[in-house]
Parts: sequence; C-alpha cells; structure tokens
Amino acid sequence: MSKRLAFLGPAGTHTEQAGLLYDPEATLLPFAPIPAVAAAVESGLADECVVPIENSLEGSVTDTLDLLVHDSTLSIRQELVLPISHHLVASEGTGSRDIRIIYSHPHALAQCRSYLAEHFPDSELVASLSTAAAVQEMMKGGLEAGAIATERASAIYGAKVLANGIEDSPNNLTRFVVLAPTDHAPTGSDKTSVCFSFDEDAPGILHSVLGEIARRKINLAKIESRPTRESLGRYIFLVDLDGHRETPLIKEALDSVRGQVSMFKILGSYPRYSRP
Amino acid sequence: MSKRLAFLGPAGTHTEQAGLLYDPEATLLPFAPIPAVAAAVESGLADECVVPIENSLEGSVTDTLDLLVHDSTLSIRQELVLPISHHLVASEGTGSRDIRIIYSHPHALAQCRSYLAEHFPDSELVASLSTAAAVQEMMKGGLEAGAIATERASAIYGAKVLANGIEDSPNNLTRFVVLAPTDHAPTGSDKTSVCFSFDEDAPGILHSVLGEIARRKINLAKIESRPTRESLGRYIFLVDLDGHRETPLIKEALDSVRGQVSMFKILGSYPRYSRP
Repeated sequence: MSKRLAFLGPAGTHTEQAGLLYDPEATLLPFAPIPAVAAAVESGLADECVVPIENSLEGSVTDTLDLLVHDSTLSIRQELVLPISHHLVASEGTGSRDIRIIYSHPHALAQCRSYLAEHFPDSELVASLSTAAAVQEMMKGGLEAGAIATERASAIYGAKVLANGIEDSPNNLTRFVVLAPTDHAPTGSDKTSVCFSFDEDAPGILHSVLGEIARRKINLAKIESRPTRESLGRYIFLVDLDGHRETPLIKEALDSVRGQVSMFKILGSYPRYSRP
Repeated sequence: MSKRLAFLGPAGTHTEQAGLLYDPEATLLPFAPIPAVAAAVESGLADECVVPIENSLEGSVTDTLDLLVHDSTLSIRQELVLPISHHLVASEGTGSRDIRIIYSHPHALAQCRSYLAEHFPDSELVASLSTAAAVQEMMKGGLEAGAIATERASAIYGAKVLANGIEDSPNNLTRFVVLAPTDHAPTGSDKTSVCFSFDEDAPGILHSVLGEIARRKINLAKIESRPTRESLGRYIFLVDLDGHRETPLIKEALDSVRGQVSMFKILGSYPRYSRP
C-alpha cells in the first residue's frame, strides 16, 4: 500500500510539488491550514505530512515553527528544498489585456511585484490563502481575473498559463519538512533541529548555551526566535545544527544545553537535503 | 505646528492608537502597506511614523524588520507597548444572531479563535488587510456581516460594538516603533537595536559575536534572524541590547561586533518603554 502523505492544500500548491518530489508513489491528501495537516497524521488519517518551513525571501513560516514548538508531537523526518517559480494564469477566454484583478497568496504577489508593476500597473491585487486557492477564486471571478500560481494548479483547475516564470528574483527557494511520528535514522550527512527557552533573563545565558555548540565545532545552521506566548520579551529559540542527535558529539552538546535551559525539545534529526 | 505622524492605516488600526499614545497632538496620516508608511517620512510627507514590530502571540512583524534591515534609512526613535483588545462589531441593523460572515486581519481571527468557535461555529471567516479595513468591508457586506476590530474603528466607520474584549489570551501585547530620520538621545534607560550578517559559515562565529555582548554583561533583550534574500541558509541577525549606543560600554561592544561581521547597521537607540 502506498504511503498516505498529507500536504498543505488545496491540490496544486508548491507544497504538493514538494510531496510529489519526496514520494512520487504516495497517495497525496490535501489539508489546510497548517495545523490541520499535522493533525491528519496525529489522528491516523495520514502516515506523514509535508509543510513549508522557510523561504529564502520571506523567511520562516511561523505557523510551522509554532506547530513544532507548541502543538505537535511529530518529528522532522526529512527536508526538501524546491525552487519557486510563479506563473500568470487565467481562464480560457481571458487574454492578458482583459485582466483587471489578480489573485494570489500575499507572498506570491510580493515576489512578482516588479512584473506586476510593469505589466499590470492598474490591476487590483487580491490576497488568497494559497496560490492554488487563488486559481479557484480566479475561475469564479469572470473574464477580468488572473491568478499567480503553479503550472500544476493551472492544469488542475482548467486554466491556462499566460506567462511563465514571472517572479522578480531568481533566488526564490522554499524549504519544506516532512513530519512523521519518528525522525530519521543517521545517514552520515544529517541535521538536527531543537528548541529551548529560559525562565530568567540573565545576561549571557543564550551565549553560554551557544557556547556548548561552538566549542565542539558543531556548525549552527540556523537560529530563530519565536514568542513563548506567555509574555512580551520571552522567547523560544529554534536552532538547527549539523549532525545527527544519535552521534556522540551532538548528543553530548544537546545534553549540556538541556542542563542550562528550562524547556528543551528535539524537533528531529533528518538527512541534509541534496538535490536529486 | 503639530508633528505630522504617519501610521499603518487606515484610520482605526491599533497602530493609530499607538500613534495617539505617542503624541496626542500630532496630525495623524494613514498609509499602507508598511513600506509606504516609512516612505512618507523619507519623502518629507511626514516627520515621523509609527509601525508595529512585534506581538506577544504572533512574533515579529517581518515587513517591519525587512524594512529596517534592507530598505530604510530611518532610525528607531521610540518604542511603545500596547495591550491588544478585540471587539466584535457590526452595522446598526445587525444583531449577533444575524452574523454569517466575519471579517478581520488573520492575526485577529486567530487571536479570537476560541470565542469564534463557541459563538459563531458556522460563520465564514474572511481575511482583511487590517482590522480597520475589515470594518470597511463589513459595512459593505450587508446585514449578515461582522468584523473584529478596535472600538475606534467601529466608531469611525459608523458601526456598533456587539461584544467587547473577545480575544482568547490576556497576554496579547504589541510593541510598536516610531521611526524618524534620527534616533533618540540617551535617557539613562535605553535600548539599542542592531543588525549584522556574515559572509562565511564558520562554526561559532555567531557565538563569538554574542560573546562581545555577554562578556561585558550587557543584556541581550532579543535575537531574531531574517533571510539575506541572497540564498537560502544565509541570515541577517537582529539583536536588541540594553543600553544606548553612545555609552562607552555599548559603543565598545558594538565596535567589536562590527570588526567581526561583513554587514553591520545600527537601527537606533531609544528609551526603554515604561507604561505612562
């Protein structure tokens, strides 16, 4: 039986593309918003799920970070990195000159800002919950509507592509993570994500914790902070390290960190992404 | 002549309330989105501006961080912290039982999730660009529409409040910053915001930089990372320190940091917020 893989839907999102790259044989199941995708795995509707976690232009997907930190028992089992390309799509009878209103996710609208300013300076830009939802809304919006979306979304919803690759920056990559009940066994080229917080505001405590990592020459791939939700100015730190949590060096560093913090959670160890 | 203070509009936003708290005599000028608020100051249309930078539940306002890091010559001159309270509002003829659709900013909808699930389980939730814009849309939306917004927005647009203080968490605070051509003179109780990045990925370089702060016993109030926009996995770090950039200890620490990083920018020194 093929794996049941939940993804941030609807059908035709960039996250679905990441899911197809991860497991072309999987049965892909759309859920939204992000907490519902993880809940599909926790409730047994799916075996694993895929969600976006970070974009090279927009930064972290905070809904995913908050899910991992606060609300989910799932672990990161895999990471995937996809180049993001945007396309202008419209329904069959619509030409570029007819378009007066353009739907897309706010990030996609922002990432095509220069293209839109040049080609559609007078069009109204309308926010949608995803690029795929934008195509659905566009198809209901009549002959003056366009959307910015994937080619796959265009095909799924019976639209056509008017312009390819309309994103302003070529450096547009999104990192996705596969979440599952367990993380991944060591492969020799791995990363580990953890989060932690402190009860008190002692000067230098973050520096001391990072020292446990630095003095073992472990590379700190990323550090990010999120609110604890308890008070303004208290943070949970998310850290990505090079190495697997089961290797002695990483294990020792994480044990030392754990001894200095009030909250500590390993979000998972997983293979470092390399392009297939 | 009163100060011209641009704010993230339209009229009736929480940011306008922050502006009124900062300078009740100011002439308040609404702009949107966030880059346009800062541009109003840079072009001379306004003297200073106020924008949200961080919420205790949602985290950083990344548009404001990216503006400060990448796009603006303005400095942080003041910080303000406001409790955020949400209200259910509707047009005159509408009662709670009539409501089938509720407009608000996605953060406000999320922050009232439990209230909405209990009282309006079947209503459609629709995203708006701001809580004030939600009231404008609600007023056009007929007698089945409600909005989540400030009391001021309700009054400005001729609506009425159906329920007060419907937010789920009492720990809902937003920090706003005033941006101006120059930052603030020392007051004795100040903070300094800086950002920096590295060219290379040497293990421990962030730890070494934070060491310049920690070994001088300077409190690190906040650390955050944002993408450089150049490649995935390269970050700009934003750090808030206790102290003013003109005091010898802070000046010495910042000079040492500057010597170790490839990009360095002081975003401003300003009085630490204390409730009036």
